[in-house]
Amino acid sequence: MTRVIALAALLLSLSPVGAAAQETDTEKAAARDVMRKMAELEQSLDVPGLVAKLTGPNAARDAVVARARALLETELLAMADDIATHPEIGFVEKRSVEKLTAYLRQHDFEVEMGVAKLPTAFVAKYHGSSGAPNLGIIVEYDALRGTSGPFHGDQHSAQGPVGLAVAVAISEFLAKSHTAGSVTVFGTPGEEMMPPNAKTDMHLAHAFDGMDVIVRSHSSAQTSRPAPGFGTCCMNIDGVKYTFAGAPAHQLTSWNGRNALEAVIHLFNNIDAVRSSIRPEARVQGVITEGGAAPNVTPDRTAADFYIRYPDEVYLAQVTEFVDNAARAAALATGTKVKIDHYGKDRDGISEAALAELAFAYMKKFGATNVQPQPGKPQGFEETGSVSRDIPGIGVSAQSSSAPNHTYEMDADNLKEIGHRGFTVDAQTMTAILFDFATDASYRGAVRREFDGLKALFGEYLAALKKTYTVPAVGDPK
Amino acid sequence: MTRVIALAALLLSLSPVGAAAQETDTEKAAARDVMRKMAELEQSLDVPGLVAKLTGPNAARDAVVARARALLETELLAMADDIATHPEIGFVEKRSVEKLTAYLRQHDFEVEMGVAKLPTAFVAKYHGSSGAPNLGIIVEYDALRGTSGPFHGDQHSAQGPVGLAVAVAISEFLAKSHTAGSVTVFGTPGEEMMPPNAKTDMHLAHAFDGMDVIVRSHSSAQTSRPAPGFGTCCMNIDGVKYTFAGAPAHQLTSWNGRNALEAVIHLFNNIDAVRSSIRPEARVQGVITEGGAAPNVTPDRTAADFYIRYPDEVYLAQVTEFVDNAARAAALATGTKVKIDHYGKDRDGISEAALAELAFAYMKKFGATNVQPQPGKPQGFEETGSVSRDIPGIGVSAQSSSAPNHTYEMDADNLKEIGHRGFTVDAQTMTAILFDFATDASYRGAVRREFDGLKALFGEYLAALKKTYTVPAVGDPK
Amino acid sequence: MTRVIALAALLLSLSPVGAAAQETDTEKAAARDVMRKMAELEQSLDVPGLVAKLTGPNAARDAVVARARALLETELLAMADDIATHPEIGFVEKRSVEKLTAYLRQHDFEVEMGVAKLPTAFVAKYHGSSGAPNLGIIVEYDALRGTSGPFHGDQHSAQGPVGLAVAVAISEFLAKSHTAGSVTVFGTPGEEMMPPNAKTDMHLAHAFDGMDVIVRSHSSAQTSRPAPGFGTCCMNIDGVKYTFAGAPAHQLTSWNGRNALEAVIHLFNNIDAVRSSIRPEARVQGVITEGGAAPNVTPDRTAADFYIRYPDEVYLAQVTEFVDNAARAAALATGTKVKIDHYGKDRDGISEAALAELAFAYMKKFGATNVQPQPGKPQGFEETGSVSRDIPGIGVSAQSSSAPNHTYEMDADNLKEIGHRGFTVDAQTMTAILFDFATDASYRGAVRREFDGLKALFGEYLAALKKTYTVPAVGDPK
Amino acid sequence: MTRVIALAALLLSLSPVGAAAQETDTEKAAARDVMRKMAELEQSLDVPGLVAKLTGPNAARDAVVARARALLETELLAMADDIATHPEIGFVEKRSVEKLTAYLRQHDFEVEMGVAKLPTAFVAKYHGSSGAPNLGIIVEYDALRGTSGPFHGDQHSAQGPVGLAVAVAISEFLAKSHTAGSVTVFGTPGEEMMPPNAKTDMHLAHAFDGMDVIVRSHSSAQTSRPAPGFGTCCMNIDGVKYTFAGAPAHQLTSWNGRNALEAVIHLFNNIDAVRSSIRPEARVQGVITEGGAAPNVTPDRTAADFYIRYPDEVYLAQVTEFVDNAARAAALATGTKVKIDHYGKDRDGISEAALAELAFAYMKKFGATNVQPQPGKPQGFEETGSVSRDIPGIGVSAQSSSAPNHTYEMDADNLKEIGHRGFTVDAQTMTAILFDFATDASYRGAVRREFDGLKALFGEYLAALKKTYTVPAVGDPK
Repeated sequence: MTRVIALAALLLSLSPVGAAAQETDTEKAAARDVMRKMAELEQSLDVPGLVAKLTGPNAARDAVVARARALLETELLAMADDIATHPEIGFVEKRSVEKLTAYLRQHDFEVEMGVAKLPTAFVAKYHGSSGAPNLGIIVEYDALRGTSGPFHGDQHSAQGPVGLAVAVAISEFLAKSHTAGSVTVFGTPGEEMMPPNAKTDMHLAHAFDGMDVIVRSHSSAQTSRPAPGFGTCCMNIDGVKYTFAGAPAHQLTSWNGRNALEAVIHLFNNIDAVRSSIRPEARVQGVITEGGAAPNVTPDRTAADFYIRYPDEVYLAQVTEFVDNAARAAALATGTKVKIDHYGKDRDGISEAALAELAFAYMKKFGATNVQPQPGKPQGFEETGSVSRDIPGIGVSAQSSSAPNHTYEMDADNLKEIGHRGFTVDAQTMTAILFDFATDASYRGAVRREFDGLKALFGEYLAALKKTYTVPAVGDPK
Repeated sequence: MTRVIALAALLLSLSPVGAAAQETDTEKAAARDVMRKMAELEQSLDVPGLVAKLTGPNAARDAVVARARALLETELLAMADDIATHPEIGFVEKRSVEKLTAYLRQHDFEVEMGVAKLPTAFVAKYHGSSGAPNLGIIVEYDALRGTSGPFHGDQHSAQGPVGLAVAVAISEFLAKSHTAGSVTVFGTPGEEMMPPNAKTDMHLAHAFDGMDVIVRSHSSAQTSRPAPGFGTCCMNIDGVKYTFAGAPAHQLTSWNGRNALEAVIHLFNNIDAVRSSIRPEARVQGVITEGGAAPNVTPDRTAADFYIRYPDEVYLAQVTEFVDNAARAAALATGTKVKIDHYGKDRDGISEAALAELAFAYMKKFGATNVQPQPGKPQGFEETGSVSRDIPGIGVSAQSSSAPNHTYEMDADNLKEIGHRGFTVDAQTMTAILFDFATDASYRGAVRREFDGLKALFGEYLAALKKTYTVPAVGDPK
Repeated sequence: MTRVIALAALLLSLSPVGAAAQETDTEKAAARDVMRKMAELEQSLDVPGLVAKLTGPNAARDAVVARARALLETELLAMADDIATHPEIGFVEKRSVEKLTAYLRQHDFEVEMGVAKLPTAFVAKYHGSSGAPNLGIIVEYDALRGTSGPFHGDQHSAQGPVGLAVAVAISEFLAKSHTAGSVTVFGTPGEEMMPPNAKTDMHLAHAFDGMDVIVRSHSSAQTSRPAPGFGTCCMNIDGVKYTFAGAPAHQLTSWNGRNALEAVIHLFNNIDAVRSSIRPEARVQGVITEGGAAPNVTPDRTAADFYIRYPDEVYLAQVTEFVDNAARAAALATGTKVKIDHYGKDRDGISEAALAELAFAYMKKFGATNVQPQPGKPQGFEETGSVSRDIPGIGVSAQSSSAPNHTYEMDADNLKEIGHRGFTVDAQTMTAILFDFATDASYRGAVRREFDGLKALFGEYLAALKKTYTVPAVGDPK
Repeated sequence: MTRVIALAALLLSLSPVGAAAQETDTEKAAARDVMRKMAELEQSLDVPGLVAKLTGPNAARDAVVARARALLETELLAMADDIATHPEIGFVEKRSVEKLTAYLRQHDFEVEMGVAKLPTAFVAKYHGSSGAPNLGIIVEYDALRGTSGPFHGDQHSAQGPVGLAVAVAISEFLAKSHTAGSVTVFGTPGEEMMPPNAKTDMHLAHAFDGMDVIVRSHSSAQTSRPAPGFGTCCMNIDGVKYTFAGAPAHQLTSWNGRNALEAVIHLFNNIDAVRSSIRPEARVQGVITEGGAAPNVTPDRTAADFYIRYPDEVYLAQVTEFVDNAARAAALATGTKVKIDHYGKDRDGISEAALAELAFAYMKKFGATNVQPQPGKPQGFEETGSVSRDIPGIGVSAQSSSAPNHTYEMDADNLKEIGHRGFTVDAQTMTAILFDFATDASYRGAVRREFDGLKALFGEYLAALKKTYTVPAVGDPK
């Protein structure tokens, strides 16, 4: 019974993870104060009241929503079917992009191709609109890589047509009604393939600058919305590639070479060596993408690709430094050289109740199915977390399939009623949100206040984590 | 936003750990049904009512308790001080055991030394008592190994004198009052040093057979009691030693040898290789106890010592098999041989509310300080979990120090008022419990019913875990 | 000065390697008796006398040799140029084989394609010849894999035309002169690519059965011949592929998987662990040919390819067992499975002075350049060592390039005078040897006696090595 | 037969090691010019002529030699027996040193203790002698560590008495005959235990400065002498200790620690990773001297001890850098720190024929047994190579046992006739050499010329090796 004292430490380390974004006890402890302030912020906004007011009867809104629906039913669901049956993988979605941009040009959008040096990225601005608020719509179109070719098992095929219906309907409304506001469609390629993170690259190239709100859709087997706050579905991620260079030599005189395969092997060994010195919530996984050419020649070039994950970005930086040091150590020990390429990252995004709860109410109003009553984890409207930290927005997800994402079954649902109905609900919801945002200044103000508040709290949270995750002190060996 | 589906799986894997013994989601899920039945069992026993009745006024009990207190104050606190100032480490506690057994013999106890082949283990039975219930008292006496010699920083020095006061007082009472019942004192050495687990060895040697209840005391910085159920403070543990034999050779002709140091090194490497294929709650830690003799000779003998921990014993078996296979693989790869010695284990024990809540009430009644209102995690009355699975009992822990366990400060408190007061409260509480147990058949029945119920539920829990922890299927490589 | 005694052991282990096939001291010691007997055998044959007699004036021989030369100059050097400029890599040499076999059919050879299930292997027998001696001619035709496509940097392009000139000239002679004897041409594909070892596979399929002698040519930057005995240029080799199967899992729940990448990594680690327990002449080198698919999925399939080399095949077996055990241990430690595929091997071949010295004398007679006066290491007439252990033969190598093998410069020399001249010398030499072998029974007898003697001594040598390479005894760990 | 070209490279790498100090082909190639010059140098000295002249009849010499023998027979063999039966291990040879220095003081030597901060090192100078030449005598006295205590299995027990007999006899002669010259006895402790290298430390402390020649004896199972040149028995050696510091943590929260055991394990792994990138003659072997304290605490301190060997010191520096980098990489990867302690080294020494051949002739003259006709490998008169590079000298080794060094049988021979006779031959030989050196200026000149010539050639050799051992160029990874 000598271990009673250890109990407290153990419980602290293993005790409950909140329903919030904080997945570990350490994060929860660090976030306690922030969570309290966040609850106060949310209470001060009276989102339920806002939502009740906005979703009440409104003929003007209903007309714009009906227009979006009509565009889908007459033209754009057919385009979605067409893209679904001509799948193209990330960064080579040429045919899909041509379909989408041709339609946008026909409807008075000016299209800029090759944004951020990505050939299949585009930004399309409506000619007739002007001034703030700046309304953004993100659309994706890349297919998944399947064992028997590309397929649209994540239904990105419909995102473009859905977004186009919203963009055209709301643009026409703004122009016709002389309501202030500009509409921009962002074509973001290759979501399924980092590197590069297309949205992050486009954001760094200032493509999204000036947007006041951004909406988008995404396929789902259920109708849901995120809780307000900051978070991500599947941990913060660093994508890193390590390339080693050695010196070749014939096997018979291997001492004349430097072995890059030993280097990449020891990258993995070095990571394994510190797994028990890293918090257990970390997930570090890699593959060897180049493992040497011929068995009778000392390999002089090898490479590995890693996804490094941790629930928060602060400790993730420590984990990634461990992995980078593992690579540097492998090079040092083997007499090789290493190039470290931090090629991509996913981070916590920010989600706002003012947008999420309105979207949720509209989805239900427009007939969404398999509705999840409880909000999910906070998460931004795009997977990189880079854009959603700077610009408020909402990813709309009405049920559009009875199958999980990334399946052949979800691909099949692209062409079925369940798909078409979900796409239509998404388009109606996005249109209604943008209508409210463009026409109701107090709603815009609420969205802004919530976003600014959450962003500040996110900063406080990160600062608290930084204080928490101290690095153990190592003295000099004697 | 492609990872929405993964959310459910992730939340399942990382979601809250209960306040109960189940530390992981998997365990919680497996235990759900068992927890419900356990709540029903506890409710059916009406422990609060039992405790209220027993702790009410009772002159006979008060007299026996006063006798125990008097023994301490006149003789046995002095003996505790003496043992505290003559510390002896585990399995060589000769002087301490002589003091204790001499006292027991003086008070009509018959002492058997060397139980279970442990020279400093003993079992002492009171001559005058007879028949059931069989009342057991466990006492420890080994000191900690400090950098400047042994010291009693866990206050085992007082356990003997406290237990002797209880044993003598209750024995005298039974004899004098012709109450049925037998008293046995168990001297259990070397608690701080496995291997061997002395109590497990003694239990396997049938030393505790026939006991109806066992009490013991332990030092603490707070007054607390465990919740009912099954659990342990710090995970289930396997202690394993791996010894490798190779063939020696001079460094200059190392191919004539087989390197046992490489073998033990690869034991660690092999474990690291599967850390990410083992559930993250596992804790596997080892040291190299023999790492080779001379740098110019191929090491032909090495050894490592491991503690392997997991929250439950079912998955622990899988983890330990990974480690054993790591050793077998290391031997296979290096052409050496390995001996695997599973030298010790700690397992979940069983704790009963009928004993724990009565102890808690008495401790408060007798003036215990720093009282923790909430019960702690379930855990048996001894650290191996072996005895407490078979025999009901309670470890009594009134505050006896202001410092954490295993400190020089707690050692100092051995001789201070805070220590003496805590030891006295422990002795009074243990005496009162045994008095109640010996004199109140309905209380004995309640303890028994609770124990049998918990033991059955523990079996159900383990069976549920066995169904849960399936091993991934690995197909044949093609 | 304590290390004086170690001196003897050290000198033994590091002392001189002979100019003979025995590359290590251990081999030299084991071969001492065999070498003495071999010297006696060679002396008994009086090869210089034989060579002097055979290379003296002989009009019949000169006519056959002139015919071979004429065939080259009128047709076959052009075919060599054509094949050189239409390079095809191993096992898909369709066009080259069509050219060769068409020519053979035109000259009364019956061609069997697809020998040993190798589509581009063939055996062509001359219609008109009959009876013993059976004269074999091996020809190769596969090109090297270059970074910018296949190329004939090893001049296999000329082997076919050279061999055809010899085959046609000697066949015509046998038929015309009614000399007993049969001529067979063996088309052996893919020499540069094991697996499979085409010649070994053909030999196991009994393609070479019954041959009394085999000749072939090979490009070289010098004119040389091997010493008599047994050996190989570049150690005995085992080619082995290791394929690991695990179980896939998402990175986030990696404990549901078994990691095949860790397995293949530990294959390498396990090999490195025993490098210092293996004799230093061993060369073990591998590459990872499959290193996992995606960084966010536990790799469930990986593979590695190894060349394992040692100067002799007896200790090589121990080395290969170390590597196989490394793979088995990697699978055991990681919970994966491994498939071990011993896909190819090169072994010591046998070379005879009676053939080599005669070839050497003829090459000089026919104008070969860059002549190396000393014989090289013993080695068989083909690289696998499988055929040359069973059938006497000679690989003829007159200088045909000024550049090293496997270079673009040697490829260029295919079309130049240095190439054409070397090919012609090779063809003349091979023709003359077969003429002598067919027409001179005493020479045939000498070749046979030498071969039988060497083969028996090779067996004695291997038996001696088996006694030498004992495995260190490893006792049970205590 | 594609590998013909590789033959040359292979033969170069594996071909014969000379009987000289150059053990590898690379060294032999680098030494070719130096070897030629060395042969010229030796020829110019006419050592056989010198030896014939000196070993001729000489009554004065015979008298001194007889005095040395008498001292042994009357007193000093008894002292050798006494020391042999009171063995003391290195650096604590107090009793042995007291016996030796007491005797020296009795014979008019002034003794300085604690030279180079080594308590059992001493320098003893004869009072009566003066001026050049300065004659040095080295004596050792440490015993071996046996499994059942210290023992004199290397007969260092006799070195002191033998050296004392020489020192006293020659001192008395110089004084009595008024011959110029000074005698110094160097007591060098702990030869069997580096660190420290006592002789190197004493040399760095200038203890040997000014000596013109140094003699010493050593036990042996044969009578032999080294060839002239530079070399060492068992490769050049670096002794290095690596100590790692991490941060401790409880096993349950291991992420709060940094694991020094993983660091030392990866030191070994990193070395294994480059074994195939290091020339195969290297021998790198280590042991883990500290492998962690308790299995439930992250080890925060570990250590390893290595002997790193290569036939020459130039490439050895590259090997040692590999090992040092392995340690640095292990620290980098594990977040620990490492201390690298290059605690000792053995290097090629210089041996002179003028001394060795004279010693050999005298040993035979004085009745040495088991005489080896061929000179052994060049090597200095002490094992570190540090003193013998700066000062000419000779280690005299007449057979003194029938058993190998470092055996209990050799210890037993200490007390037998074979031991006593060998010690006597050593003492007579050393006395005769010093007599010749002191009395024959032309001999002194020859020794000096040879030494200076060899030292210059050694420098040339090292310079040639430096040019040979280039490090492979590793380009930047792309």
